[in-house]
Amino acid sequence: MKNQSSASFFEPGPRGWLYFDANSIGAMPKLAPRRLARLLAEWRRLRRRGWSESDWLDAPRRLGDKLAPILGAKKGSVIVGDSTSVNLHKALAMAVRLRPGRKEILSEAGTFPTDLYVAQGIARDHGLKLKLVKDPSLIEAAVGARTAVVFLSHTDYRTGYRHDLRAVTRRAHAQGALTVWDLSHSAGAVATDVARGNADFAVGCGYKYLCGGPGAPGYLYVAPRLQARVQPALAGWFGHAEPMKFEPRFRPARGIQRHAVGTPAVAGNVLLEAALDVFLKMDLKKLFRKHAALSQLLIDLAPEELILASPADARRRGGFVAFRYWQADALVAELQSRRVVASLRPPNIVRFGLSPLYHRESDVRELARRLQAILA
Amino acid sequence: MKNQSSASFFEPGPRGWLYFDANSIGAMPKLAPRRLARLLAEWRRLRRRGWSESDWLDAPRRLGDKLAPILGAKKGSVIVGDSTSVNLHKALAMAVRLRPGRKEILSEAGTFPTDLYVAQGIARDHGLKLKLVKDPSLIEAAVGARTAVVFLSHTDYRTGYRHDLRAVTRRAHAQGALTVWDLSHSAGAVATDVARGNADFAVGCGYKYLCGGPGAPGYLYVAPRLQARVQPALAGWFGHAEPMKFEPRFRPARGIQRHAVGTPAVAGNVLLEAALDVFLKMDLKKLFRKHAALSQLLIDLAPEELILASPADARRRGGFVAFRYWQADALVAELQSRRVVASLRPPNIVRFGLSPLYHRESDVRELARRLQAILA
Repeated sequence: MKNQSSASFFEPGPRGWLYFDANSIGAMPKLAPRRLARLLAEWRRLRRRGWSESDWLDAPRRLGDKLAPILGAKKGSVIVGDSTSVNLHKALAMAVRLRPGRKEILSEAGTFPTDLYVAQGIARDHGLKLKLVKDPSLIEAAVGARTAVVFLSHTDYRTGYRHDLRAVTRRAHAQGALTVWDLSHSAGAVATDVARGNADFAVGCGYKYLCGGPGAPGYLYVAPRLQARVQPALAGWFGHAEPMKFEPRFRPARGIQRHAVGTPAVAGNVLLEAALDVFLKMDLKKLFRKHAALSQLLIDLAPEELILASPADARRRGGFVAFRYWQADALVAELQSRRVVASLRPPNIVRFGLSPLYHRESDVRELARRLQAILA
Repeated sequence: MKNQSSASFFEPGPRGWLYFDANSIGAMPKLAPRRLARLLAEWRRLRRRGWSESDWLDAPRRLGDKLAPILGAKKGSVIVGDSTSVNLHKALAMAVRLRPGRKEILSEAGTFPTDLYVAQGIARDHGLKLKLVKDPSLIEAAVGARTAVVFLSHTDYRTGYRHDLRAVTRRAHAQGALTVWDLSHSAGAVATDVARGNADFAVGCGYKYLCGGPGAPGYLYVAPRLQARVQPALAGWFGHAEPMKFEPRFRPARGIQRHAVGTPAVAGNVLLEAALDVFLKMDLKKLFRKHAALSQLLIDLAPEELILASPADARRRGGFVAFRYWQADALVAELQSRRVVASLRPPNIVRFGLSPLYHRESDVRELARRLQAILA
């Protein structure tokens, strides 16, 4: 039972505390300090020679390949680096350029705000309209001949509603549109299946379920069939075919590497890789099944005062379980005083971020007990 | 003599080696391991609460303010984050938008290639022409009524030629153009005086003379007079006036904060701050004088077979000293075998990157001895 011991790879945090913030900052892999110590030793010993004598420079590709199975992507289709927002900017700019003449970016009103800000910027710069649908289940019906790109959070940051990536993408493609997915609240907790689902672009965050540490680098997925057709949105040194030749003209690298931009953020990559190396030890199918089981257990054991805001269908749920409660803010504060970290999304949503890597059935049972004690 | 002991704040590297690669990866501050250990402890103990209970989130502004005096900038005009290339993209896109109708980006043929790639991308996206001048001394004469922006490396990455930022900016402004400066090969070694010189935008790299470690975050300077006039090129969460309100529409923060984009890269910021905290202990004027003195000493003591490629005038030299030598590649290899790290820029340039923080007169004298021994 490979997966049952996965929690042993992570720092448990202070004794007695329960952290259900896997949706915010994942736990620290026990490997992290050793990996950072190695980086510091390399910096001290090698300085510049680290670029050639260590593995700093190929980290964006190497980490991308380690991340690929977690996303359901093929090797060579994911690159790690830059923030999620910057990657979103790249993905949207490229998608829009691949559909010249189409006038609309289609998204949801409830998309994570920063994603909307990026989309507003792209719409402004490219002379497009950003069309927002209120009800996520109406997205498919809203795709039309004017739609350049359907741009969605795979999992909604408040309700935990997880889109059917495959169905939405099929519908978008049938209308000639492309899809861009933000996987931040899914990747590392539930299957995202970007390759089987035929997604065009995807981005996400390295520090939530992926456990890459605060402000870890984000990532960009570009479907292999699109990679050669598209110029990088932000052309930079490390996207060049031969960066060390210092050619005066940009000549994009083959494949996903062309979407790298500046010098890799080495310390951030080192921490993220420590976490990805734990995922590599796991059977991912079992891991995602474990996540679904933990989520279901929490739903089953939660006091009836908490109204499930997440979908009842496990296939439509993302990384966290969300409940509605009329005094959500007081509940989160009371949980905190009983050493439970959960998160609030005003006005009335409480979220419990569950990681299949380090949360155990016993953690969920203990959470349920503390919730019962508060609401009793 | 505050500055004379500055080397004691840095790890010297392996005994017997001389590292003249301050232009590539600066030395490691002794503070770095302790600062990272604190970050790991916070991650372990606080996880998500680190965003509110630690100082991670305001690092882009805080580090920007610590960096400002080094650049000759005022507080509130520098933000730390993203790579140099991404910041260049932002600066150029904003400059071009501030000069609608003008059709040219003016730069040098010898600008650092990644800077050219970014400029080519911006020129393509905005329908502008990228005009390149071969001789850097002809830049001022080339500025005209068609010029939207003059975009230059403050210090040339091969010759070490440092532009007169003030004179070029004055000329650009007289023609109605803006300036964007890449300070990577200057900042932390020589004065850049962006405020007194009236620069419009500047960007740079955190890991060279600033000693922020491999792949450290870059930075963006926006002149205070422009900050309120310009929308951020890449709108994102942390550039919003009230990011934690999750408003659906982007509403830019006041001042430099609006140019932040995604979640700060916490580990990279921690390392860069350790280095900036050393700069803060120093008298910067003395530091820059020391750099000029070390550079002059190297020029004076260098074997006559090495032809000075950098300007003879210290005010026109950037962070490193460059020499031409007919067998530059063999010389760099021979130096390496004698435990001296220098860098090669084909076909015939050898660079010695000098840091006023950790290089000493005795290091330069020892370098001169080893050079003499090789060339004798």
